[in-house]
Amino acid sequence: MSWIVRESGFDPERIAHHGNKFMIGNGVLGYRGTLEEFSKSELTATIVAGLYDQVGSKWREPVNAPNGLETNVFWNGTRLSVLEAGNVATGDSAVKSESAGGERDRSRPELVAHEQSLNLRQAVHRRRSVFRTGDGAEVTITSERFCSAARTELIVCRFTVESSQDGELTIVTGINGDVWDINGPHLVRMESGAHAAGDDATWEVVSLTASTQELGLPITVAEAAEVASGGEHEVLREDLSIRRRIHVRCRAGEPVVLVKAVAVVAGLEGETANQVQAAAIQSAREARQLGYDRLLSEHAEYWERKWSASDIIVVGDDEAQLALRYSMYQLHIIAPERSEKVSIPARGLSGQVYKGAVFWDTEMFMLPFFLYTQPEVARNLMMYRVHTLGGAKRKAAEYGYEGAFYAWESQETGEDACTLFNVNDVFTGRPMRTYFRDKQVHISADVAYGIWQVYAFTGDDRLLLDGGAEVAWECAKFFYSYGYFNPRKQRYEILDVTGPDEYHERVNNNAFTNRMVKECLRIALDAMETLKRGNSERYEQLLAGSHIQPEHIRDMYERLYVPEPDAQSGLIEQFDRYYALEDVALPQLKSRMLHPHEYLGGGNGLATTTQILKQADVVLMLHLFKDDYDPAIKKANWAYYEPRTEHGSSLSACIYALVAADTGSPDWGYPYFMRTATIDLTGDAKQYVGDLYIGGTHPAANGGAWMAAVLGFAGLRYDGDKAVLRPALPSAWQAIEFPVRLGGGSYRIRVSREEVVITAHGDNPAGLRFTVGEGELAVAPGQEVRIPV
Amino acid sequence: MSWIVRESGFDPERIAHHGNKFMIGNGVLGYRGTLEEFSKSELTATIVAGLYDQVGSKWREPVNAPNGLETNVFWNGTRLSVLEAGNVATGDSAVKSESAGGERDRSRPELVAHEQSLNLRQAVHRRRSVFRTGDGAEVTITSERFCSAARTELIVCRFTVESSQDGELTIVTGINGDVWDINGPHLVRMESGAHAAGDDATWEVVSLTASTQELGLPITVAEAAEVASGGEHEVLREDLSIRRRIHVRCRAGEPVVLVKAVAVVAGLEGETANQVQAAAIQSAREARQLGYDRLLSEHAEYWERKWSASDIIVVGDDEAQLALRYSMYQLHIIAPERSEKVSIPARGLSGQVYKGAVFWDTEMFMLPFFLYTQPEVARNLMMYRVHTLGGAKRKAAEYGYEGAFYAWESQETGEDACTLFNVNDVFTGRPMRTYFRDKQVHISADVAYGIWQVYAFTGDDRLLLDGGAEVAWECAKFFYSYGYFNPRKQRYEILDVTGPDEYHERVNNNAFTNRMVKECLRIALDAMETLKRGNSERYEQLLAGSHIQPEHIRDMYERLYVPEPDAQSGLIEQFDRYYALEDVALPQLKSRMLHPHEYLGGGNGLATTTQILKQADVVLMLHLFKDDYDPAIKKANWAYYEPRTEHGSSLSACIYALVAADTGSPDWGYPYFMRTATIDLTGDAKQYVGDLYIGGTHPAANGGAWMAAVLGFAGLRYDGDKAVLRPALPSAWQAIEFPVRLGGGSYRIRVSREEVVITAHGDNPAGLRFTVGEGELAVAPGQEVRIPV
Repeated sequence: MSWIVRESGFDPERIAHHGNKFMIGNGVLGYRGTLEEFSKSELTATIVAGLYDQVGSKWREPVNAPNGLETNVFWNGTRLSVLEAGNVATGDSAVKSESAGGERDRSRPELVAHEQSLNLRQAVHRRRSVFRTGDGAEVTITSERFCSAARTELIVCRFTVESSQDGELTIVTGINGDVWDINGPHLVRMESGAHAAGDDATWEVVSLTASTQELGLPITVAEAAEVASGGEHEVLREDLSIRRRIHVRCRAGEPVVLVKAVAVVAGLEGETANQVQAAAIQSAREARQLGYDRLLSEHAEYWERKWSASDIIVVGDDEAQLALRYSMYQLHIIAPERSEKVSIPARGLSGQVYKGAVFWDTEMFMLPFFLYTQPEVARNLMMYRVHTLGGAKRKAAEYGYEGAFYAWESQETGEDACTLFNVNDVFTGRPMRTYFRDKQVHISADVAYGIWQVYAFTGDDRLLLDGGAEVAWECAKFFYSYGYFNPRKQRYEILDVTGPDEYHERVNNNAFTNRMVKECLRIALDAMETLKRGNSERYEQLLAGSHIQPEHIRDMYERLYVPEPDAQSGLIEQFDRYYALEDVALPQLKSRMLHPHEYLGGGNGLATTTQILKQADVVLMLHLFKDDYDPAIKKANWAYYEPRTEHGSSLSACIYALVAADTGSPDWGYPYFMRTATIDLTGDAKQYVGDLYIGGTHPAANGGAWMAAVLGFAGLRYDGDKAVLRPALPSAWQAIEFPVRLGGGSYRIRVSREEVVITAHGDNPAGLRFTVGEGELAVAPGQEVRIPV
Repeated sequence: MSWIVRESGFDPERIAHHGNKFMIGNGVLGYRGTLEEFSKSELTATIVAGLYDQVGSKWREPVNAPNGLETNVFWNGTRLSVLEAGNVATGDSAVKSESAGGERDRSRPELVAHEQSLNLRQAVHRRRSVFRTGDGAEVTITSERFCSAARTELIVCRFTVESSQDGELTIVTGINGDVWDINGPHLVRMESGAHAAGDDATWEVVSLTASTQELGLPITVAEAAEVASGGEHEVLREDLSIRRRIHVRCRAGEPVVLVKAVAVVAGLEGETANQVQAAAIQSAREARQLGYDRLLSEHAEYWERKWSASDIIVVGDDEAQLALRYSMYQLHIIAPERSEKVSIPARGLSGQVYKGAVFWDTEMFMLPFFLYTQPEVARNLMMYRVHTLGGAKRKAAEYGYEGAFYAWESQETGEDACTLFNVNDVFTGRPMRTYFRDKQVHISADVAYGIWQVYAFTGDDRLLLDGGAEVAWECAKFFYSYGYFNPRKQRYEILDVTGPDEYHERVNNNAFTNRMVKECLRIALDAMETLKRGNSERYEQLLAGSHIQPEHIRDMYERLYVPEPDAQSGLIEQFDRYYALEDVALPQLKSRMLHPHEYLGGGNGLATTTQILKQADVVLMLHLFKDDYDPAIKKANWAYYEPRTEHGSSLSACIYALVAADTGSPDWGYPYFMRTATIDLTGDAKQYVGDLYIGGTHPAANGGAWMAAVLGFAGLRYDGDKAVLRPALPSAWQAIEFPVRLGGGSYRIRVSREEVVITAHGDNPAGLRFTVGEGELAVAPGQEVRIPV
């Protein structure tokens, strides 16, 4: 059962949440977990990775493709929809429904049972709804759908209707181009087509083709639909849709099965609408010929491989087990396995929130999962940063700096999609100036850090030679031009930044930022040495004509100020004069709020003049640079900062879990782990900031859950040379077992309270040294080693 | 008539404004222009220069002393007060009064005529009110009052009642300790006393003695009151007051004259309440013995001298003539002629607004008037900064800097009275974090600049040796520790400051600030050279043990970045990235306001993200450093910045007038001059920022009016060596004539359209070189020189 996520009953209040929770995807397409009868008011969405559009001066955001899964069922002329049925499935809503309508309308279908579920193992979404119709029939609708991992342009659905009585069944299914948009409409010049196969009388494929507004990129959704038992087909065209009406005479106990294969193909620049349309039609046709079972089995095979590379077994804690699997599921469905031109947006492929943009979340919270399980995906993620270096250089130049200032919100070209006004003031309705775009300079260090991680993990210097070294160097140049020298204190400083704690904008010497910048400078120097050896010509090119040379970067590296722990208290001040801010308790701060959604940061936010922070900042630094700090320092800072942390970001809790585990207090960390791991299951995360909707999935938290389990509780670390295991299991766990890829080899690690078992795959290229507790040992290919704890 | 400021009629809406407009003062005491029957709800105030108090954590502000002038008149038992009378004197209010009450109440006295006036020449306030009583009598109340310039603890009043009929007259007069406070109550342990002279049956003097809350400083108000025609006296004591009831049988046509001498004495630390009380009683007694006429004549003598040193004659423009005189009057009544321990607060002595604090206003807007007319007052003003150096050093240390960071809002010790939250958000009622205190670092440069001005004007190095050099040096050290070196651009920069334009807080490289800092560094180096010659021991002391030595200051001076005019446009960017802000027209910005008092600056203020500025910033720099910039540069910047200036500060308009005159466009400047010169006559200045009341007098604007007339339109400049006259009279003016003190000598200068006449006083110590137009000439003592224009 720990592979199934299930929700019974229908509650209209949870439509948006379930849209996130029951998402399917394949890294290229994301399809929200809505029902077939839903339309844009229920936030249906088919998001195409890397496809963005801007309308006028509104926010640039992902394109929501026409919905090819839309299907409505009519039983003897009456629509069967959870939205219109009298709902008896869940207590609350049933009461509401009854009392709102007074006496129940006997002619209205009644929803007798309803369930949505997700099979994580196969990445298949299922729904089952049972309606009792006015004429006494019990009609069951089931559907099953997946975004094919084998054919990434394809979404496949099998839709079944079965009745307890004979009756007239009408199914209206097709493609609906009237989509939900936050800042749309993005699709224009929409045209439908119906395509026959040879001399077949029915239309094999229908399609909707449109163009994006800004770049005029073509996109086609093509749908092949077939009812096995036949029936009359009719094509219905409207301005923004094309649908089929299928009329079937339904017999009691004989299911009517509709199979749909929906291909979504977006064109690159230069591709014509015709080319795109032809490709989509071709894909839908092929899928139809293959049939549902074959499509499902090839899809499931891919997923079997994903799980064999990543699945974690938690013994003794079913809730954590499911939450962890679910977290990994969410990462798998949005991972760009086959493209280095896209990365993972902060809300995955769950909609248009946060402009579908890639944040530092990817490098700092998602990358580790892929590094340890699918390093080739990790490489893709970082190659995306190589490909978007141009945008980062343009941003640096825009602000008068040198080198590369990566976008705070990065889309396909690396231009910064982040606006200067990101949150509306709930009191005046006015957009508020925030400094996310201008001042979160740590992003450039995060990118360099990510690149170095991939290099260190794989031991493969190709990423550095393929542009990674250049990225690191340009980021270092940016920081050199951004930094200042304090003549009195004889040190470099990083001024006027916003750290991870966005409630305090424009601060000086943010500990996290300064430490990351120092790391970036080190990485740049080392990466450039690698480049010099591997491609001296390129090395010379990068340095030619610049007045910033390695000796400058080295000087800054050596004399850059990084706030140190206080000798007495062990505390590290988050930024200059942080301690001078009001030291108020979090509940007290919250009691000052006048509006439930008011933004605590920005110009006048309540937290800005206090020590309350949005998310782990100093503590994140202690996690990333754990070797640099004694356990006592980590404990002191955890204890100081945690009560001051609002955890207003979904990135926060996992870091507190990690550092708690690192300091030997896994039970302190466990609630933060669970909060992180269940974020998209419960839907409890913040939905609004100001009047801005920020709902959607939380892949950074999903990655954080994996980190907390494997890097935290199992205590695994790998630095590119040797692996360390310092387990600290929470009380609820008896054991944890998981596969990892380290230095090109595959390992299976099991950590229990009694022993650590490391099994090396027989095909591993070499052995690997592990440090477990006090001891160190080498694990040869094919070897299984047991170390008592 | 150009010596009299007069308002006829009574309008309750203008009580607060008239309180400012008709103020009297003597630099030690300020008494608001309220009427004798007023109390705290009409904002009566007796402000004692340099006496401050803080209650709890509320704002620290000046103490409002008990009101010793309070007098109420009862005619046959009915109170005669403008507040209660049916008002027929002014159209609007009369109508309001009638309609509000329906049929007029015949028993209520009617205000037949009312007038308040100020004799600027003698600094005497007069009021005259004629009441028609219910019994048909016409009773005229006149009063005349002044703050004695000869005896600065004394306020003197002559109060006269005359009736057209016989009647019973009761006068209740005394000292009312129930005062208006913004953040009070400041006076505690209030005790009244009645003091007889020898065996006289009447009480010669009554007194009220109290202590301030914070420091426990004693203060006594002692009143000697006498009705020439005698009458029955009775003393009335209440908790917070002591009054006499004087009952007189009044005969038609025979004035009853009450003379009051009120001494206000505040104790210094260490003085006892008894000492203070004794001094106050003694003063009141002496005054009573001298009598009204003698007190007035000795007071008027002082004023004759003030005017002979400063009065300006404007030929052809009566309105400007009166406004200029009035502006100088306002400066004279608050000038610390006899103390170097106080300076002039931004709202003079008109109340508790702005915490009664001294701002940069003094150095940059008021100092020139005193420099050119009464250099000894200018010296006092700057000695105040010497005496408050300790506070400035503590403030620098508080923020982690070296040297002296002068208070943005300075009170008697130089501690910064400026709070971190200065304005309330009109939308939420919450205090808003502003950076006035933290970031307006230019204040330290302004102080050094003021000190150097006094030194240069007087040619007397005593101010430098008496602490002025030390102040300049500590200010330079502050800037050295505040500044940063940009390694890429090889220059020092001044980051994270707020310039005069407070709508843009926390900007980098504000042109005005950087230029002022550069000047401060230069002054510090030169002043230290003077100190080295004059007191080498002190010089060595100042440098001993500091790692900031003159060579560091010189390096910063030489390599400090000051934004330069653009080669094409001539424009100087107000600060880094100012041009990147929204370029919106002022009316459009104002149309976005949702609340008439909303603050345009601060965290989310409407101006902060636009190019709209509060007040002259770049243009102020062009005024102060006029030799450094070509006329074309000045014109270009004037033309660019003026339409973007909200003039939300009373310091703004005069600077635009000055630079317009400097560039040969006096008629452009004239409206700005008039706006500045009439600010306290019209009361049209901003009264609220957020929900903060900021009303009061505007001495910086008063000083600005003088600057615009003498330094602008007459075009006078003196650099300590020679004088320059580059007249640019506005069309409305035929001539301007004024006295000045230059290099220890007295001169009278007359500028007309035909000629410039310079008359040197016979007692002048030496001659002086003048440059007028193209020519240069020396003016010997006693010589009169005419130069045709």
